[in-house]
Amino acid sequence: MSKILVFGHQNPDTDAIGSSYAFAELSRLRGLETAEVVALGDVNEETAFALDYFGVPAPRVVTSAKAEGADQVILTDHNEFQQSISDIRDVTILGVVDHHRVANFETQAPLFMILEPVGSASSIVYRQFKADGREIPKATAGLLLSGLISDTLLLKSPTTHETDVKVAEDLAKIAGVDLETYGLALLKAGTNLATKPADVLIDIDAKTFELNGHSVRVAQVNTVDIPEVLARQSEIETAIKTAMQANAYSDFVFMITDIVNSNSEILALGQNSDKVEAAFNFELKDNHAFLAGAVSRKKQVVPQLTESFSK
Amino acid sequence: MSKILVFGHQNPDTDAIGSSYAFAELSRLRGLETAEVVALGDVNEETAFALDYFGVPAPRVVTSAKAEGADQVILTDHNEFQQSISDIRDVTILGVVDHHRVANFETQAPLFMILEPVGSASSIVYRQFKADGREIPKATAGLLLSGLISDTLLLKSPTTHETDVKVAEDLAKIAGVDLETYGLALLKAGTNLATKPADVLIDIDAKTFELNGHSVRVAQVNTVDIPEVLARQSEIETAIKTAMQANAYSDFVFMITDIVNSNSEILALGQNSDKVEAAFNFELKDNHAFLAGAVSRKKQVVPQLTESFSK
Repeated sequence: MSKILVFGHQNPDTDAIGSSYAFAELSRLRGLETAEVVALGDVNEETAFALDYFGVPAPRVVTSAKAEGADQVILTDHNEFQQSISDIRDVTILGVVDHHRVANFETQAPLFMILEPVGSASSIVYRQFKADGREIPKATAGLLLSGLISDTLLLKSPTTHETDVKVAEDLAKIAGVDLETYGLALLKAGTNLATKPADVLIDIDAKTFELNGHSVRVAQVNTVDIPEVLARQSEIETAIKTAMQANAYSDFVFMITDIVNSNSEILALGQNSDKVEAAFNFELKDNHAFLAGAVSRKKQVVPQLTESFSK
Repeated sequence: MSKILVFGHQNPDTDAIGSSYAFAELSRLRGLETAEVVALGDVNEETAFALDYFGVPAPRVVTSAKAEGADQVILTDHNEFQQSISDIRDVTILGVVDHHRVANFETQAPLFMILEPVGSASSIVYRQFKADGREIPKATAGLLLSGLISDTLLLKSPTTHETDVKVAEDLAKIAGVDLETYGLALLKAGTNLATKPADVLIDIDAKTFELNGHSVRVAQVNTVDIPEVLARQSEIETAIKTAMQANAYSDFVFMITDIVNSNSEILALGQNSDKVEAAFNFELKDNHAFLAGAVSRKKQVVPQLTESFSK
């Protein structure tokens, strides 16, 4: 059987790593013996914490399937080709497990595709183990739990699905951890921002959106101390301006998210600050403003910007 | 709850009708009380046989979701927008149950999407009932069985998945029919071509594929007598030319499939007959050629055309 690579998206987050690790394992159990988890980038500090906690080595990083001798792939936690492996158009996509919208995705042949509008791809992989009547190994449960916690900010994000709460409880039991204690420790492991230069900070978790002809970059960092990040505003603004010029972004929206109190400070630079203000019904002062209750880029920032920029 | 329309593809075949009928029923059981099965065209004679046999009225035909007061839809047995309802881009796609490749499909938001590379969409709906631990009503089982028989030519097509055999046996038991006897009667009900004018013939089961900028129509009819159909070649070619002009198809590939001996004759007109010949490694004589063993548009025709047109 030829090699099958299983991976999450570029700039992998904990859900991308957790879901791909677990689904590769399940695929082998289902008879795809050559399924191997790999990653499209180095793991971040939050993911490294989870891998270390459960004694799992980080998946090796690859950039091309063909270069690995693989012509079959399985995607988790993404489907859009620009977020996938470089030669995605040259290989056979056997399967997809995802919880995002579908866009810029197509196949030559029928495939397994399991998408659910839930809090994490890890939640779906959990249900696939259950559907098979298989027990989830402890470390696998730990990584799936970490993916779910990471994507839903410990079940507090509005992206959390009603079914995710029970999934988290069950996974925590199998993994042998206390959900709240482990969850907060995991999220905090991803908030070590102080040692990172500003140009790294604004690129940790950043995506570009084409909004009515404008190229809008929306980046997010998690923290337990918003003022600590804001103290570096001038350094961050310099990095943002450099990135805007280099990439022709019309606007840069930087979310500084307080994972403990579930709020965000928005720092916004660019040509359309009026549209950013209209999107969130706030007034930027010194380029920033507080957005109470906002933690989800996908649900609480991008749709509002899309709407505002369409006018 | 606002109305939710559930439907298969345009030019519905028995799998499109069977899978949408059954999945609408399952969706209501799952709490989507306003889910209603509709169809994007009149049922064909094969499907009419199945509906009559199991005492189910044909779903009403609609052409627009908005006109029905629905802004949410669920697709079965297709995903490509050009095969779907006219205003598919203006409504929310809640779910997809399909067994085809993915192409020309995108959504604004996350959704339920269950695709499996199996013989029919009906097979997948069967498993969804099973996953819920629900009993399948007799008439529903009959329609799902009919969809599976139709799409796999009574489990003989190479699109048949190893799991489909057991699905067919189980559905036949629930529906209270003998698989072979009912299956052959169903397929024969769809081979009454003699009374149909050529413009109807070429549209009974026809789909459009966008291949590398070319709009290629691929139609299929089932018969027990290929020469009987070929005797009408000139009349059929006239109808094809009219359809090509009216719809700007670059090419029209007409499969005449012998359901007893599992072969097809291919009649092809259009700008790219060289690519059609290359796809099947045959030579068209008088616009047609024999394709031994070919019964599946999805496995034995469309991928080969896609590959050939991409060069």
